[in-house]
Amino acid sequence: MITSTGNDKIKNVQKCVKQSKERKKQGVFIVEGVRMFSEIPSTHHVESFSTVKFYENNRELFDGIRYELVSDSVMQSLSDTKTPQGVLSVVKRFEDDRLTKILGEYDNNDVSVNVPLIIALENIQDPGNLGTIVRTAEGAGVTGIIMSSGTVDIYNPKVVRSTMGSIFRVPFMYTEDLPGCIEKLNEKGYMTYSAHLQGKSFYDFDYTKPTVFVMGNEGNGLSDEMCEATNNKILIPMKGMVESLNVATASTVLMYEAMRQRSSSI
Amino acid sequence: MITSTGNDKIKNVQKCVKQSKERKKQGVFIVEGVRMFSEIPSTHHVESFSTVKFYENNRELFDGIRYELVSDSVMQSLSDTKTPQGVLSVVKRFEDDRLTKILGEYDNNDVSVNVPLIIALENIQDPGNLGTIVRTAEGAGVTGIIMSSGTVDIYNPKVVRSTMGSIFRVPFMYTEDLPGCIEKLNEKGYMTYSAHLQGKSFYDFDYTKPTVFVMGNEGNGLSDEMCEATNNKILIPMKGMVESLNVATASTVLMYEAMRQRSSSI
Repeated sequence: MITSTGNDKIKNVQKCVKQSKERKKQGVFIVEGVRMFSEIPSTHHVESFSTVKFYENNRELFDGIRYELVSDSVMQSLSDTKTPQGVLSVVKRFEDDRLTKILGEYDNNDVSVNVPLIIALENIQDPGNLGTIVRTAEGAGVTGIIMSSGTVDIYNPKVVRSTMGSIFRVPFMYTEDLPGCIEKLNEKGYMTYSAHLQGKSFYDFDYTKPTVFVMGNEGNGLSDEMCEATNNKILIPMKGMVESLNVATASTVLMYEAMRQRSSSI
Repeated sequence: MITSTGNDKIKNVQKCVKQSKERKKQGVFIVEGVRMFSEIPSTHHVESFSTVKFYENNRELFDGIRYELVSDSVMQSLSDTKTPQGVLSVVKRFEDDRLTKILGEYDNNDVSVNVPLIIALENIQDPGNLGTIVRTAEGAGVTGIIMSSGTVDIYNPKVVRSTMGSIFRVPFMYTEDLPGCIEKLNEKGYMTYSAHLQGKSFYDFDYTKPTVFVMGNEGNGLSDEMCEATNNKILIPMKGMVESLNVATASTVLMYEAMRQRSSSI
């Protein structure tokens, strides 16, 4: 059992919890808590750290995986939360080209690939918003998420936690050139939509074709460049004096409308 | 200008920022930031505190209202945020019977009252979730929000902030007996729905009649008692391995589906 926070392995994990750069350099991210622990794809599990109490109550979850027992105070020094659940794992990052591969299979008429539904995010800053969007995206059957490089790090522990495990299953990618990426999808025949106050009501469009919803930053909305890159501007109707919806809320409305249309068109 | 945090008025406002009990006793709540400041109903404005800089840049907003100038350090001592925007207001609470009155007018066939759409919340704990639900509710044209007494204080500064001003406009009430309240609405002919994993798809119901959506606690979902009180159980379909949606996300899906049905039924 590791009882010292000065242990080299522990010092390294602490760095990965706190520093985005360090996680990136090592090609890993950190996952906390029992629920997400039990959902880590075995191909991506690197090593877990558990308190004795957690291990004794959950022995079956440790079958065949690499782990170390640590004291309660060492766990506290690793954890990003006030009341650690007793287990924390180092997980290998996902390949950057997963989403590109899936979209390529669709282009090649592979019938096992559903009609793509993509969420594109420009500079989303709030970890809770990004995590919630990833979680809802899985629920709504979204194919993948494309993020501008100015979007918060999806491997940030707060984002990871609020995905409730969906980060393991929803393909995503970052791009330096989100408008260019949208234009390429336009050329392939995707319908691309930006949320815009001068747009037409989102209820009036057909989302059963390959669809991309582009969502903007919390404070500033979408940049003009992004709006111009999409081939449709849509408005989510709002009553009262509401000027805009939270970005995770707006994404939810759009994703579930696409899901509704797609399930009733079968 | 008040420059001392020992000033009696300042000490009193500090108490109201920090203590739910104190806010309740004094019948007030605290509102921070320029956007919400400009939306406070004049009938409910008690007193505002402003830094000199904020006042000089926004003189027109102070016409006819009671205010005190304070030093930057006094503002920092009052603020619930790390970077205060320079204005903070004490606002009178809303009457507890606003929603009851509106529903009473609907019962009396007052044609100016829209068909009610109610969100009922059982023990929601996260301030950000409650604030987002209030904001989305205004956008979706919800008549009002009924909360169990175990729900987080809607006058909590974090909730107030995340409503983005909708707290001033969406009628709400707390009740000690939420199941009893739902049963009364059943008797009046309301269709009441609880989100439940054994329910029927929410797409299969008609929400153009008087409607109540009952949403449960983040960790535990709805209590059995609440589920039994409603006359329908509905499920929001989810793909992948998602077991549940965030409560603000689920509320969004339901409110906007009701809005969609109501706008297309006109």
